[in-house]
Amino acid sequence: MSGAAKGSFVNPLPPLEVLSAEQVEAVHRASLRILRDIGIEVLSDRAFDLYARAGAVADRATRRVRFDPALIEETVALAPAEFTLRARNPERSVTVGGHHLVFTSVGGPAYVSDLGRGRRPGCYADMCDYIRVVQCLDIVHQEGGGPTEPTDLPPETRHLDYYLAAITLTDKTWQCWALGGDRVEDAIEMTAIALGTDRDGLLREPAQMTVVNTNSPLRLDIPMGEGLIALASAGQATMVTPFTLSGAMAPVTLAGALALQNAEALAVAALTQMVRPGAPVVYGGFTSNVDMKSGSPAFGTPEYAKATLAGGQLARRYGLPYRSSNVNASNAVDAQGGYESAMASWAALMGGTNVLEHGAGWLEGGLTASFEKLIVDAEMLAAFAAFLTGRPAPVPRLLPPLDPPVDAAGRAEQVWRGLLAGYEPPALGPAIRDALDDYVVRRKRRAA
Amino acid sequence: MSGAAKGSFVNPLPPLEVLSAEQVEAVHRASLRILRDIGIEVLSDRAFDLYARAGAVADRATRRVRFDPALIEETVALAPAEFTLRARNPERSVTVGGHHLVFTSVGGPAYVSDLGRGRRPGCYADMCDYIRVVQCLDIVHQEGGGPTEPTDLPPETRHLDYYLAAITLTDKTWQCWALGGDRVEDAIEMTAIALGTDRDGLLREPAQMTVVNTNSPLRLDIPMGEGLIALASAGQATMVTPFTLSGAMAPVTLAGALALQNAEALAVAALTQMVRPGAPVVYGGFTSNVDMKSGSPAFGTPEYAKATLAGGQLARRYGLPYRSSNVNASNAVDAQGGYESAMASWAALMGGTNVLEHGAGWLEGGLTASFEKLIVDAEMLAAFAAFLTGRPAPVPRLLPPLDPPVDAAGRAEQVWRGLLAGYEPPALGPAIRDALDDYVVRRKRRAA
Repeated sequence: MSGAAKGSFVNPLPPLEVLSAEQVEAVHRASLRILRDIGIEVLSDRAFDLYARAGAVADRATRRVRFDPALIEETVALAPAEFTLRARNPERSVTVGGHHLVFTSVGGPAYVSDLGRGRRPGCYADMCDYIRVVQCLDIVHQEGGGPTEPTDLPPETRHLDYYLAAITLTDKTWQCWALGGDRVEDAIEMTAIALGTDRDGLLREPAQMTVVNTNSPLRLDIPMGEGLIALASAGQATMVTPFTLSGAMAPVTLAGALALQNAEALAVAALTQMVRPGAPVVYGGFTSNVDMKSGSPAFGTPEYAKATLAGGQLARRYGLPYRSSNVNASNAVDAQGGYESAMASWAALMGGTNVLEHGAGWLEGGLTASFEKLIVDAEMLAAFAAFLTGRPAPVPRLLPPLDPPVDAAGRAEQVWRGLLAGYEPPALGPAIRDALDDYVVRRKRRAA
Repeated sequence: MSGAAKGSFVNPLPPLEVLSAEQVEAVHRASLRILRDIGIEVLSDRAFDLYARAGAVADRATRRVRFDPALIEETVALAPAEFTLRARNPERSVTVGGHHLVFTSVGGPAYVSDLGRGRRPGCYADMCDYIRVVQCLDIVHQEGGGPTEPTDLPPETRHLDYYLAAITLTDKTWQCWALGGDRVEDAIEMTAIALGTDRDGLLREPAQMTVVNTNSPLRLDIPMGEGLIALASAGQATMVTPFTLSGAMAPVTLAGALALQNAEALAVAALTQMVRPGAPVVYGGFTSNVDMKSGSPAFGTPEYAKATLAGGQLARRYGLPYRSSNVNASNAVDAQGGYESAMASWAALMGGTNVLEHGAGWLEGGLTASFEKLIVDAEMLAAFAAFLTGRPAPVPRLLPPLDPPVDAAGRAEQVWRGLLAGYEPPALGPAIRDALDDYVVRRKRRAA
């Protein structure tokens, strides 16, 4: 593992296989049949044209794109098994793939919560504070895509404010937003400035990675298609993640849901290679089930664990790095959230996950970024890391078990408030800072 | 697996091995060296004589018993790899060993707690209510040895009240107390009455199993020695469990603590076979570390998980069933308790555990049996069982995630109160009930 980046670590566990080799092949074949006979609906013209040019059967009237199995297999095979993402602090660059493991903070919630102030819509100040605490937690290797939406800022330009915050408040890698090509282009430009490099430099040493979701079942929408093209063109990493819920937008059986997940993941991973052969791409699994009483997604369940383990087997089938998640369905930083998160994370680690997305902070099925859950999860991740590496966890035990005698959520509140009070921004050269500010001002002026 | 009892289930996972084959042999050899060169201190005369008669080097002045390695290996090899414990409801008999898995409720805490009434010393009424809730939870296969001490009853005879409660309030197998030969004899007599059999019948079809702890380091005290002899004489099952804490009564390294655990487990397992070759005996692992700040035992930690997995490898090395535990160090039914329990249980299941002792209800490092933790753990165990068997969990989801919007502990409180309100005692023939009452009355009269 020489040359591996220092910001991630190695998971020595042999992956646990819940599917037999025959079952993996059956899911594989079923996915290829889906892509051959039904195909996917591709709403972006540029993505549609790329598929057509690569030899897929593309019907412009219905936007339906169908694939010869060999085209999918040969194209996906062009993707690298492993790559490194450069952080502005070289100690925090991360390697993705192989046996490497990267923990990220929660990305994307609309709400933010803490014990003292309760739940509220995300705002810029909360987003920045959350990123500051993430910076303090060594066990969280990567900022996971904006902990909460800054809903107090204009929607068209708030990504610029998030990017500037991610770059200046942390020295870790961070995930941009793939919602359209422009937002990705801004991320690439600002990442280049932050690293003192240019697009050619980023092509040689990628630094950006983010999630591209499909609209299950079997649809790639315009913003995600355009975002993917911008990422792959620039040689940056895409984490293709179908969100396939058994019993909702996916078949109620695990085999059926996995076949759908796999079909979508393969079609979209293939697109990255049609844009640029060798562009880094990660196989994302996010298959779970719905609670049949409430209809809401269930996480950290037996079905989730099984799908997570099976997803790892599929990713390895194609030689792609694997992304899964630390998720739970609890509405509080409570015992349910604790054991569901542990169950989801164990399945991820036993399944050979390379990127544990939403590794710390996810609450309420992903609606909310919780400050206290961030701390509790960080402690749990540190315990897993110590278990896997045999070395003391990079974060000391955050939650003293006895003193003071408050529950874990209460102790976590004390911890994050202490970290935030002691936070110091990582050093950033004034010329880089000026160039970033200038970029944001110019882009906002253009957007206005 | 034909002939397997219906009250337990099969864990199909291949065990996860954290020790190499060489490391297992190194621990094995180190244990045998400890037993040859240091030996164990045996305080019970009868146990001491049994060891001496079997050929151990027994020094009456120091009570020290040393062993030739071959004596240990040959004697332990006489124990069965698998056995079945008969419950008074045949559907609830359990098989111990092989790939079978038994979940027990918490055993032994001095305190009991629930959200409404807080923590208090255990009493008879609380003990009975707890056992009633255990009876309602199908996923808890065995009553784990008395959920809380009935401190309002006389110490000399309270075991009789517990036994009568366990027999009449549940139809599952239950664990007696090994604190002295008399308490075991009472359990055997009452178990025979409950099952309509006699001691010969119990010899053919064992029904009792309980924990025999060593006093680490390297001491077997009088009550535990006498209890073990009574159990093994009657062909009932002993779970030998050294409680070896790295950094307290055991070496600070995992290898050292495991060697000590293994030495004690082997010496005491050998004693069961000296009493009665073929008597059922389970290898118990309870190695963890202490929190170096507070000095209190830590559970559900990386060290605990590793020791649990390693313990399974050692048990299999000797062809013995394996016991480990679902434990945590939290003082509340909170996120810490949730994730530590999940971590401990995952390690147990991945380590090939056959008996998950304290499977549901353990809180405060084992000081307290919590009614709410019993429910939360039962839900978690049901999720693990569904994961392992691929069948819906035997308990439906106890904790609705959204409605009403209270945290997991609050919902658990509603669940156990509902179960207790709806509890109905399992049928028991009036003649058996009379015979049990008569036994208890006579025994109490004799004790007075």
